[in-house]
Amino acid sequence: MAVPETIRWVGSASEGYLELLDQTALPHEVAYRSYCEVGPLVEAVRRLEVRGAPAIGIAAAYGCVLGVARGVERGLSPEEALTRSAEQLRASRPTAVNLGWALDRQLRIAPVDIEALLEEAVAIHREDARLCEQIGQCGIKLLTELCPQRGREGDQPLRVLTHCNAGALATGGLGTATAPLYLAAHEGWHLRVYADETRPLWQGARLTAWELMESGLDACVICDNMAAALMATGEVDVVIVGADRIAANGDTANKIGTYSLAISAAYHKIPFVVAAPYSTFDCSLTHGRQIPIEQRKSGEVVCPSGLAISRPDTPVWNPAFDVTPAELIAAIITDRGTIQPVNAEQIEKVLRAGELTTAR
Amino acid sequence: MAVPETIRWVGSASEGYLELLDQTALPHEVAYRSYCEVGPLVEAVRRLEVRGAPAIGIAAAYGCVLGVARGVERGLSPEEALTRSAEQLRASRPTAVNLGWALDRQLRIAPVDIEALLEEAVAIHREDARLCEQIGQCGIKLLTELCPQRGREGDQPLRVLTHCNAGALATGGLGTATAPLYLAAHEGWHLRVYADETRPLWQGARLTAWELMESGLDACVICDNMAAALMATGEVDVVIVGADRIAANGDTANKIGTYSLAISAAYHKIPFVVAAPYSTFDCSLTHGRQIPIEQRKSGEVVCPSGLAISRPDTPVWNPAFDVTPAELIAAIITDRGTIQPVNAEQIEKVLRAGELTTAR
Repeated sequence: MAVPETIRWVGSASEGYLELLDQTALPHEVAYRSYCEVGPLVEAVRRLEVRGAPAIGIAAAYGCVLGVARGVERGLSPEEALTRSAEQLRASRPTAVNLGWALDRQLRIAPVDIEALLEEAVAIHREDARLCEQIGQCGIKLLTELCPQRGREGDQPLRVLTHCNAGALATGGLGTATAPLYLAAHEGWHLRVYADETRPLWQGARLTAWELMESGLDACVICDNMAAALMATGEVDVVIVGADRIAANGDTANKIGTYSLAISAAYHKIPFVVAAPYSTFDCSLTHGRQIPIEQRKSGEVVCPSGLAISRPDTPVWNPAFDVTPAELIAAIITDRGTIQPVNAEQIEKVLRAGELTTAR
Repeated sequence: MAVPETIRWVGSASEGYLELLDQTALPHEVAYRSYCEVGPLVEAVRRLEVRGAPAIGIAAAYGCVLGVARGVERGLSPEEALTRSAEQLRASRPTAVNLGWALDRQLRIAPVDIEALLEEAVAIHREDARLCEQIGQCGIKLLTELCPQRGREGDQPLRVLTHCNAGALATGGLGTATAPLYLAAHEGWHLRVYADETRPLWQGARLTAWELMESGLDACVICDNMAAALMATGEVDVVIVGADRIAANGDTANKIGTYSLAISAAYHKIPFVVAAPYSTFDCSLTHGRQIPIEQRKSGEVVCPSGLAISRPDTPVWNPAFDVTPAELIAAIITDRGTIQPVNAEQIEKVLRAGELTTAR
């Protein structure tokens, strides 16, 4: 499948730079912005120019290359430059675990060498594309089991609801939640994908609808608060979402609104599926209550894109993520297999089995 | 309590006109627009310049006066002018039952007389203010039972979540869902009111937050998809919403998103309460599946207030209302008493008992 490219490195390790598809400008403008310093890259991550847990990890890995290149030019030792860059990058977003995971991979490189850092960043990037593909294969198998009469030739279309953007734009490949959809479409399945608009930043309406339509899939946008009503009409066969961090017991932090969707899916007995690579699991946390949740500015809610909705002094509560308890999740599709049922034992089993068999 | 005035008639029956607080301009501008013809009034109802089931009913009742005044000037008989106006007004919004109810009251006037029509419109308007007050009294009693340690002096604040605007702006008085809150605040209760922003038209963020803050209440806006996460933090004691039409069994049509909220409240064991006057009940419908649901234009979702979010050709599903099944509703507070549990027998009992004792 031809899906949009989110992140690319241009040039050599010491003189090259990072290009990011500016996701804040989509769907109106397809613009790549260039970064050759860590500071502006951190700002770009905060502004959500690049977003999605896997993509943030990849960008941060490349960011280490920039940090060491510029640091050394300013007279720092490569080690010091790397440590400082990793610190700055780590603080950019608190919830996605892939960020810290990618930085830790870079910090393990010894001695610090800029060529090796770029190689590792490229490896993380390529690996992510492969993980997406594997998640997709897992997902197709699961969808065939969960919705046997849907999607294949002669069948009624498979109707999928997703939230936020766990798509190509959020990763280095086919996306996480979208990977099974892109692969299925490639195999000729009939699909209809409903995208929650995903307030406050409209990642579903802006990004998911765009990349699905660009890839030729049948998309339909709904407001977040319409999901339950859509389910009641019988129009949703399965819900698939991404994840920003998954605790050892399967509790899953993802974009705000995911939890509400999972509750509605449970009420309608619709399977609720999470899609994520192994790097999204944080087994140092026993449950979801330990996941830090980023609070964002009130303006995102009451003055989106400069459109003043409420009085400017209106109090707002604006968490960027919520935590869906494992009990509401039918399955987690990963690059290492499908976790079903979702509990600590199954998670450990699938992740460990994958670890033994995956060439790394 | 001083709450904003939504609708007012100015002048005599034959030469007067209707003024509506333009709710599409709030909270930035407090502007009253004048109507002296039915056509522009119907457009104003469609544009949601006046909205909320009770307010639409009141506006339509006054609209009959305009219709007969202008019709007679153009040579129609008063009867013909009334019939035509009522038809036009009835078609303006399909879901709210109060609209048809108010028009039917006007159509029962015989012989058709413009003074009598204005008297009836004023009666409907005044009665609505009284109904709000009675709903409020009922609501305070119910809140005292449901949340005994909350709100009163020395207690922790009572934390209420509401959806859309079932406030003063939606009625001729203190609102429906807001009536208990305004009365409680007047009695010195400590309250914190969370308002769902209510996509796509932001009635919560634009209208509810505004009227609560104007009235001195402590308000906080959240995106609709944050409600479940807020409930999970323990920050919500009770959910109170309005209604556009209630079937004989208690199934309730209300602004899109209400159903999702009710499911989340049930999951968190938080009481979910509906507030509505007797005129919102449509006992000709045995259950909610018979309630017509208005579908609105895609632009409301993907191009709100001219802000283009998605590609303009993006497919959208945009129902204005959804239906919450009676099983998810802890109680319905009405002007005639509290319906609890919510089922056909209780509804009939409370409405009939009220009918016998209410001076009309």
